[in-house]
Amino acid sequence: MIQEALKSLRKGEMVLVFDADNRERETDMIVAAEHITPEHIKVMRNDAGGLICVPVSHENSEKLGIPYMTDVMNEASEAFPVLGKLSPYDIPYDEKSAFSITVNHRKTFTGITDNDRALTIRELADICRDGRHSEFGDLFRSPGHVTLLRATDGHVTRRKGHTEMSIALMEMAGLTGVAVCCEMMDDRTGNSLPTEDAMRYAREHDLIFMSGADLIESYREFRS
Amino acid sequence: MIQEALKSLRKGEMVLVFDADNRERETDMIVAAEHITPEHIKVMRNDAGGLICVPVSHENSEKLGIPYMTDVMNEASEAFPVLGKLSPYDIPYDEKSAFSITVNHRKTFTGITDNDRALTIRELADICRDGRHSEFGDLFRSPGHVTLLRATDGHVTRRKGHTEMSIALMEMAGLTGVAVCCEMMDDRTGNSLPTEDAMRYAREHDLIFMSGADLIESYREFRS
Repeated sequence: MIQEALKSLRKGEMVLVFDADNRERETDMIVAAEHITPEHIKVMRNDAGGLICVPVSHENSEKLGIPYMTDVMNEASEAFPVLGKLSPYDIPYDEKSAFSITVNHRKTFTGITDNDRALTIRELADICRDGRHSEFGDLFRSPGHVTLLRATDGHVTRRKGHTEMSIALMEMAGLTGVAVCCEMMDDRTGNSLPTEDAMRYAREHDLIFMSGADLIESYREFRS
Repeated sequence: MIQEALKSLRKGEMVLVFDADNRERETDMIVAAEHITPEHIKVMRNDAGGLICVPVSHENSEKLGIPYMTDVMNEASEAFPVLGKLSPYDIPYDEKSAFSITVNHRKTFTGITDNDRALTIRELADICRDGRHSEFGDLFRSPGHVTLLRATDGHVTRRKGHTEMSIALMEMAGLTGVAVCCEMMDDRTGNSLPTEDAMRYAREHDLIFMSGADLIESYREFRS
């Protein structure tokens, strides 16, 4: 299963990953950022419907210098006191949000179209792959329409979110540590897509579906 | 035309607004935040496909104390130097981004589902309508999955973005100064939906379509 998932990711195909019943209880579409195309963005917004986000590995986050949004808001809370009062101390499924800053590539127009979002994401993966992290500020502007997520150091060994699972997949596949993920929504209930429906979608579209538990187990074996 | 649009908004229906050929060249779906339902969120993510954002009037933004994200990043740029380098000085269609902070209502679970986003948005409209702005930090957390946009003081008389147009519509309709908007994307080209296709969508779904120019002209008459 994991080998098929990694093969798919290396070919630029999406995989579906369900996190866990004691966490968000969500299935995310995941694809490698270095292989992102406007077609992927279209499928994510039409068939998944969540927020199209970009998990960035701890190492790449450090080299880019991107902070957690929570830390940005803390820094600014003296000037803007309400930011301190909005503290996300009560997230029901985790102790910390992975949200970092939002970006657009400077060559995008509005930043929101499929073509623009794919450009932003692919170019971010490219500078990370090529070790050109220092060009980040020259090439990108913030705020923008693509939300970056910071993966915890040690990712799935420390935090079991889709952010960390995406990065574990990239590492196992030998891909650049930047990914794209989007939560799958349910048109009928207004909630997350139930697992059995996500599994059916995977079968119908010839995609790999895997659980977070299997992913984490595979990662432990990979690292040992 | 404007009277029909205002009637639709008061009934909780969406209207479509194209900004201008010399701006984003985008049509947004717009609905009053106080009337938002999970069904609206579903339609926006399935049929529009952009970022579901919440324009907040200048007055409500001041009372809530929500800053522009650009100003938050400036405040934090000493601690996180890359934030200064990502400055959005080169937005092709405007001089300033309307992005403010992102929020989730504290009663949401993940924050991203149709039910969660509708709850976040409706409750924000409710505290603004009822003058309970001081409860903002008790009831909401940030960062979250709903992006707030700050309307310029004087809105369409000063800046002609969808943020300001949304707020001008709320004001003319006698609704609370909080709205919801989402850019319409084109599945075929990966760009924004062409105006003629947005007009066809409006006809097929019995919605009002109007241009930014007509909206601004109506607002000038309303204020005079």
